[in-house]
Amino acid sequence: MKVVADLCIVPMGVGPSVSPYVREIKAIIDASPLNAEMHANGTNIEGELSDVCRLIEQCEARLAELGVARVFYTMAFSSRRDKEQTMADKLKAVS
Amino acid sequence: MKVVADLCIVPMGVGPSVSPYVREIKAIIDASPLNAEMHANGTNIEGELSDVCRLIEQCEARLAELGVARVFYTMAFSSRRDKEQTMADKLKAVS
Amino acid sequence: MKVVADLCIVPMGVGPSVSPYVREIKAIIDASPLNAEMHANGTNIEGELSDVCRLIEQCEARLAELGVARVFYTMAFSSRRDKEQTMADKLKAVS
Amino acid sequence: MKVVADLCIVPMGVGPSVSPYVREIKAIIDASPLNAEMHANGTNIEGELSDVCRLIEQCEARLAELGVARVFYTMAFSSRRDKEQTMADKLKAVS
Repeated sequence: MKVVADLCIVPMGVGPSVSPYVREIKAIIDASPLNAEMHANGTNIEGELSDVCRLIEQCEARLAELGVARVFYTMAFSSRRDKEQTMADKLKAVS
Repeated sequence: MKVVADLCIVPMGVGPSVSPYVREIKAIIDASPLNAEMHANGTNIEGELSDVCRLIEQCEARLAELGVARVFYTMAFSSRRDKEQTMADKLKAVS
Repeated sequence: MKVVADLCIVPMGVGPSVSPYVREIKAIIDASPLNAEMHANGTNIEGELSDVCRLIEQCEARLAELGVARVFYTMAFSSRRDKEQTMADKLKAVS
Repeated sequence: MKVVADLCIVPMGVGPSVSPYVREIKAIIDASPLNAEMHANGTNIEGELSDVCRLIEQCEARLAELGVARVFYTMAFSSRRDKEQTMADKLKAVS
């Protein structure tokens, strides 16, 4: 199932500033073959839902190495059968 | 990665009332081996993230059979390394 | 605008276990006049969107008193014009 | 309470393509005094939580005029007391 997922990963229990952790997450997402674009509250990722989930597990594993014992995640996405739609298509359709 | 996911599946484009579709989704979730509990805005599901994703794909396939071309999903979950925690544990810890 | 909101409040930076904070949040929600029901990943709250927002601000203020400098929130809700629907109505429609 | 909210508004019951409705929502958000930036899955909006809620109600009212009887919304945001942080600050901190 192909999705454009808005993913937000929140390291818990490591102080109010989480940017060092978010930079690590960003590096993992950037290194993945999935098309992704960061925004102020998360990252849009284009791909098979199962690949997005594997990417989440990689991020969690890296955060665990850095001492983050608990992580909160939100993911919003849609699937459609009537047509294929990339992130770029979605933005173009409404501008 | 074990999670307790709060999953919300929103059939789009089929009128304001979506309860017939939600009943179909509920039947699929009930038939799965994953522990799940419905609430007024979604369903909490306990299991491996990959299994939860497979369940989402099953729900999408059933909705497609029923003519739903587009589906919106939200999922919030957390992972933790310091201890295992079930849905029941989570509720007990705060009451 | 009347909503049934699924609200999740995540205290950040205070260790992996947040149940003492969630208990405080629960007490504030229970004391409010809004109809609410907790589940394993959050709380469903019925009311005017502006009242739900005020309740969120009360929770944030209490968490700040307890030393929580940063809080993450997710809220999912729907509005409808075709009919009024309570939490109980929503659950009844799909069971 | 100042927030940077990731808001997603999903018109329900009006077919799988919702871009005409999203364009109307975009026009309302653009016309508001709040700082906002659209991405592929939603819009980040900077401002007081109560102002963001009022903006949501304006969007819902416009969608109702256009015949959308039911709307689904997700909103993720964080609040912090240790420092002020804009959308631009958030992105800069992690790049």
